[in-house]
Amino acid sequence: MTYADRLEAAIARTANSALIGLDPHADSLPPEFAIARDPKASRRQKADACAQFLCEIIELAAGRVPAVKPQSAFFEIYGADGIHAWERVVATARSAGLLVIGDVKRGDIDSTAAAYARAFLDPAVAGEAVCDAITVNPYLGGDAVQPFLDAAKAHQAGIYVLVRTSNKQSALFQDHGTPRLYERVASCVREWGNSCMGSGGLSSIGAVVGATHPAELVSLRAQLPTTPLLIPGYGAQGAGAAEIAGGFLPGGRGALVNSSRGILFAYKQPRYAGLHWKDASRAAIDAMIAEVGALGCGRSASGAQARG
Amino acid sequence: MTYADRLEAAIARTANSALIGLDPHADSLPPEFAIARDPKASRRQKADACAQFLCEIIELAAGRVPAVKPQSAFFEIYGADGIHAWERVVATARSAGLLVIGDVKRGDIDSTAAAYARAFLDPAVAGEAVCDAITVNPYLGGDAVQPFLDAAKAHQAGIYVLVRTSNKQSALFQDHGTPRLYERVASCVREWGNSCMGSGGLSSIGAVVGATHPAELVSLRAQLPTTPLLIPGYGAQGAGAAEIAGGFLPGGRGALVNSSRGILFAYKQPRYAGLHWKDASRAAIDAMIAEVGALGCGRSASGAQARG
Repeated sequence: MTYADRLEAAIARTANSALIGLDPHADSLPPEFAIARDPKASRRQKADACAQFLCEIIELAAGRVPAVKPQSAFFEIYGADGIHAWERVVATARSAGLLVIGDVKRGDIDSTAAAYARAFLDPAVAGEAVCDAITVNPYLGGDAVQPFLDAAKAHQAGIYVLVRTSNKQSALFQDHGTPRLYERVASCVREWGNSCMGSGGLSSIGAVVGATHPAELVSLRAQLPTTPLLIPGYGAQGAGAAEIAGGFLPGGRGALVNSSRGILFAYKQPRYAGLHWKDASRAAIDAMIAEVGALGCGRSASGAQARG
Repeated sequence: MTYADRLEAAIARTANSALIGLDPHADSLPPEFAIARDPKASRRQKADACAQFLCEIIELAAGRVPAVKPQSAFFEIYGADGIHAWERVVATARSAGLLVIGDVKRGDIDSTAAAYARAFLDPAVAGEAVCDAITVNPYLGGDAVQPFLDAAKAHQAGIYVLVRTSNKQSALFQDHGTPRLYERVASCVREWGNSCMGSGGLSSIGAVVGATHPAELVSLRAQLPTTPLLIPGYGAQGAGAAEIAGGFLPGGRGALVNSSRGILFAYKQPRYAGLHWKDASRAAIDAMIAEVGALGCGRSASGAQARG
């Protein structure tokens, strides 16, 4: 079953498009995981605390959202111990029936890109910690993306190519030229995707498009009618339901909307004051599902208008 | 002492600009490390074999070349065991007095980029496996590069921003627009570099420019008079002395020329037939030093002409 088909099934099964980003910032972890920020703790202890926290988040998310997105950087700071933690988190999420999108943003020349693709997408190499999809940086060009396309085909996996990222200065290079660079990248993504189509009409080759650029999101959605979008920028980064509405295909298909800090560290938000962190995160997941699910399934444009 | 100054001192000390890329392709390792490609071997055994091979390469390189460049992908395929091997290789190279440029090509939004910068450049986080410099992908924009600049300043480290890569289809996006994207990136690299100048007039913020584009290398050298260049593409990727000649500042300053497979797997080349792998690699290092050292120090334009 292709990644595109697994993705569509997961969105249909959970009736929402919420993606929970697993970025375990040590400074924000709930007090019971404070060892992660204890200068006297070992690297192993810190990594284990992050993994334990994320496994509890996964327990809250299982069966409720289609996918999670662990962020490699927050594991890599613990070196080999961090990669142990990554492997535990990915395997736990997969066992819980969640799709796993490894947010690794890798990109390199041919044989090196092939090694990255094996590391994350080949079950014979990654074992239980294999990802369903990963994010890929396109700066190096088509031959550098090709090994990831090959791996997507060989292992029924997916990739999400960075097109228009959610950060404030993403225009610096992504808006360069006429057409803009991100539009040029998008047209390549569409072309690359043609060779990896699922049976439902969606490709396994996706694009990352930030919710913080709602006009571009609408135009890219039109330019990429068969491309799954990964939409960061919702929640803590500032975008709400109104901004993400343009990212969906009819019927709530074709997009995942990511929230990381807004879910993981919900206990820090005034509206969840007094709740145990787990109850706060559970409530934040409920709120996101209500907002994103309603929009995604096209049942409530009013949800967007009410917030916008 | 800034990275720029350590780099200049290392080039002066060894009288050459050869950079040995540490990319342990399991399929190419000498027979005594064949366990790295044994399907029955554990991941730990494979990673250990790669590390052992690279540590022996480091022994050959110590005191002879200024720097080595381990490639993260070939360690990541072994998961946590691979990162153990990475840490051993980086620490061994540093102990041997070699500068270590981590070829990780990371790039991500603010807080995530900061985590990557800590993982590789902060001695309090990376310990003995801290890198002197890393490669950085600029696609996400200025705010995504900033945490790496901050880390370079805080930890006297360096970064090399991908500008014009050595692969065949690098023009696909890097040549996009007018001026070309890579020229736009280069002008930002120059600007970013102004805040990280060493006492010798070179910045700690460098650029990756492939030797496979010799005309661009010459024009970028002119556009970036204080930027250290990391020049891949020499050797196995096809470029020779004539192609790299344009990358140097007067006196052989300001550039490192990388060879990976050409050194590591020299024993497979016809001209080293019959030699033990270690003698072949030693001879290949000698040959590269003779060619790159002569060019770099401006002593032999004839070397380039003889080959070109």
